[in-house]
Amino acid sequence: MESKSEQNEWSSGVWDHLTAVRRQSPLVQCITNFVSMDLVANTLLSAGASPAMVHSVVEIPDFTPHIHALCVNVGTLTPEWLPSMKAAAEVASQLGKPWVLDPAAVNCSGFRLKACLELIGLKPSVIKGNGSEIIALSSASRGQTKGADSSHESTDAIEAAKSLALSSGAVVAVSGAVDIVTDGNQVIGVHNGTKMMQRITATGCSLAGLIAAFLAIDSSRGLEATVSAMSVFGIAGELGEAMANGPASLRMHLIDSLYGLDETTVRSRVNITRLG
Amino acid sequence: MESKSEQNEWSSGVWDHLTAVRRQSPLVQCITNFVSMDLVANTLLSAGASPAMVHSVVEIPDFTPHIHALCVNVGTLTPEWLPSMKAAAEVASQLGKPWVLDPAAVNCSGFRLKACLELIGLKPSVIKGNGSEIIALSSASRGQTKGADSSHESTDAIEAAKSLALSSGAVVAVSGAVDIVTDGNQVIGVHNGTKMMQRITATGCSLAGLIAAFLAIDSSRGLEATVSAMSVFGIAGELGEAMANGPASLRMHLIDSLYGLDETTVRSRVNITRLG
Amino acid sequence: MESKSEQNEWSSGVWDHLTAVRRQSPLVQCITNFVSMDLVANTLLSAGASPAMVHSVVEIPDFTPHIHALCVNVGTLTPEWLPSMKAAAEVASQLGKPWVLDPAAVNCSGFRLKACLELIGLKPSVIKGNGSEIIALSSASRGQTKGADSSHESTDAIEAAKSLALSSGAVVAVSGAVDIVTDGNQVIGVHNGTKMMQRITATGCSLAGLIAAFLAIDSSRGLEATVSAMSVFGIAGELGEAMANGPASLRMHLIDSLYGLDETTVRSRVNITRLG
Repeated sequence: MESKSEQNEWSSGVWDHLTAVRRQSPLVQCITNFVSMDLVANTLLSAGASPAMVHSVVEIPDFTPHIHALCVNVGTLTPEWLPSMKAAAEVASQLGKPWVLDPAAVNCSGFRLKACLELIGLKPSVIKGNGSEIIALSSASRGQTKGADSSHESTDAIEAAKSLALSSGAVVAVSGAVDIVTDGNQVIGVHNGTKMMQRITATGCSLAGLIAAFLAIDSSRGLEATVSAMSVFGIAGELGEAMANGPASLRMHLIDSLYGLDETTVRSRVNITRLG
Repeated sequence: MESKSEQNEWSSGVWDHLTAVRRQSPLVQCITNFVSMDLVANTLLSAGASPAMVHSVVEIPDFTPHIHALCVNVGTLTPEWLPSMKAAAEVASQLGKPWVLDPAAVNCSGFRLKACLELIGLKPSVIKGNGSEIIALSSASRGQTKGADSSHESTDAIEAAKSLALSSGAVVAVSGAVDIVTDGNQVIGVHNGTKMMQRITATGCSLAGLIAAFLAIDSSRGLEATVSAMSVFGIAGELGEAMANGPASLRMHLIDSLYGLDETTVRSRVNITRLG
Repeated sequence: MESKSEQNEWSSGVWDHLTAVRRQSPLVQCITNFVSMDLVANTLLSAGASPAMVHSVVEIPDFTPHIHALCVNVGTLTPEWLPSMKAAAEVASQLGKPWVLDPAAVNCSGFRLKACLELIGLKPSVIKGNGSEIIALSSASRGQTKGADSSHESTDAIEAAKSLALSSGAVVAVSGAVDIVTDGNQVIGVHNGTKMMQRITATGCSLAGLIAAFLAIDSSRGLEATVSAMSVFGIAGELGEAMANGPASLRMHLIDSLYGLDETTVRSRVNITRLG
């Protein structure tokens, strides 16, 4: 159980972060998969950020220096897209801009696993995946070849996440029934959200984009910014589900709710606990 | 007119198939066009299946052996994507996994027609198109060079569908005012659905994905599984239209309805007849 | 202030154009970005047009001669896509078919700016952008290397638009709080629309597609067709916003409204003025 004052502190942080995103409208470059581009862009727009779906390797030298944060998602990775992801990640790292790696379905092929490990070598600020993805990456980072299956709950992934955070230097976020965020030392649980969000494609990718926007406005505190983004997205989902009749109306109400979130609602719904 | 008992049998079959999809959550690999990826994924998720939009040729050897069914749609075909489609289709055929070909806009170019004929050579379980597409493929399969225009109603396409089914060994499904499904011998009509669905992009692609999910759980009875998927999708559309004010709200209500379909609704709305 | 009779004339024109699109259902080829394909297609379908997202360079010789209009959008441009855009634009220009260029985010890289200038050389009927994009193109067309930042309001862009229209031979449309349309001589303001539309991704791309559809049915009067498309899209947005709780429901209601627009609503809401 958290103390009341600690909960108040988390609530203030979440609201302050959201307010800063709305005020500063950070420019977030997204190199994401084909399935999620629309929802990622709309999530960022509804949160007050400015998405830019610029992915060509020839544009990165001109464009990436101007962004405030980068989100890379490998959901429909091909060998042709990987150089762009690496080039953008390199520019972001060199210029000290935060960037998020979403290793979507990393365990679906050896090619994708290798690509994600190479991207992790380019120093992402945050790695966000589900339990299976984080366990697979964590194992592979330790040189273990056998990855995870897709049945791992996020709570089972805490040790894997801590290990990956320590080896990579990134904050690691694990989405699940309870979202987990760790820098390798602290472990925070975000209890916002709703199960039906898993029945909408691209919600995970959209969360990764949102984390990038929150990092953009508080890059020195990656753990807190990530926790705030996950809580905000989860709260929008909770509000959305209360109005929804199924996944498609949930998707609509989630985005509308994200756009309309006010201080009272955020403060009363933030549900964050320290797990370790 | 069908006998009452025959209608009951169809209704039971449709409901049993949907229940099995929800319970087994088959993994359906979709190599589909850019326009439809989002709706195809959300259709599969709302039906209880697990979509995977994996399309890179380098990932197919690792990934495709684990799927339960494959859906290939040529809606935004390029020479770069064709090898992936062929590779995935080959793996599926070799491993006895069902796969669906959606020859979207096959008659828009010689390149696309040739590609579809090559894909048909890889033994799809089901070919699903509109009347024009099926007529064009059927003619081309018989070595006739002049294809169809886009004004053919699905009922006009019965003979073409039967011919294509016999020459290809696939079940052929023709979407239209009345959907037609044939294995070359039996001809079944599915009367569910609503005209306004044609004013939403990617509904045809989504239906193809749904057929793949239904094949996954009853691959030995391709005709029946296809009929069930078409009926379920049509019923969801009917329920959606009753709540809709236009194509965009229909799209939302269709997906919500597919998610929420219950036995009473399915049984009372299934409208399937034997046409030959 | 417009005279009442001039407003009536604009209203009649807008309604006549929309009616013609619905009746003729022009085939509009869209080579657009990955983010917007879904919404562009659904916008065209809801307006009564027939979208075709055909982009492979190998299909253009077969397909493009059959279209009624073309829309090219560079939002996710890569070197691989540019030849298709050029090939389609060339066919359209040679066959006298109208085509629209949407120079999305033209100022994000030197590559994109150069590509847009090359496309302008292929004689688009309409160039549609926001203020920054039009100013950047206009400057570059005059050999000035320093482009615009993104803070320009459309009204500031009038001179740039006129200059670009005269140098390119295209009608230039500038979206903004007030939309501006000019052929270099006449300057028309379209006051329909709502600010929240900017919080939905791909509305600008969808408007470009809609302009192409309207050009298809009145290609000899590019200025008037463009004004009509912008007014119709803005009116649909106004009706949508009256029902919306945020950007996602606005998106849905916008498309539904576009589908359902009737003469009384169109005539009473058209808000077009002559600015010069």
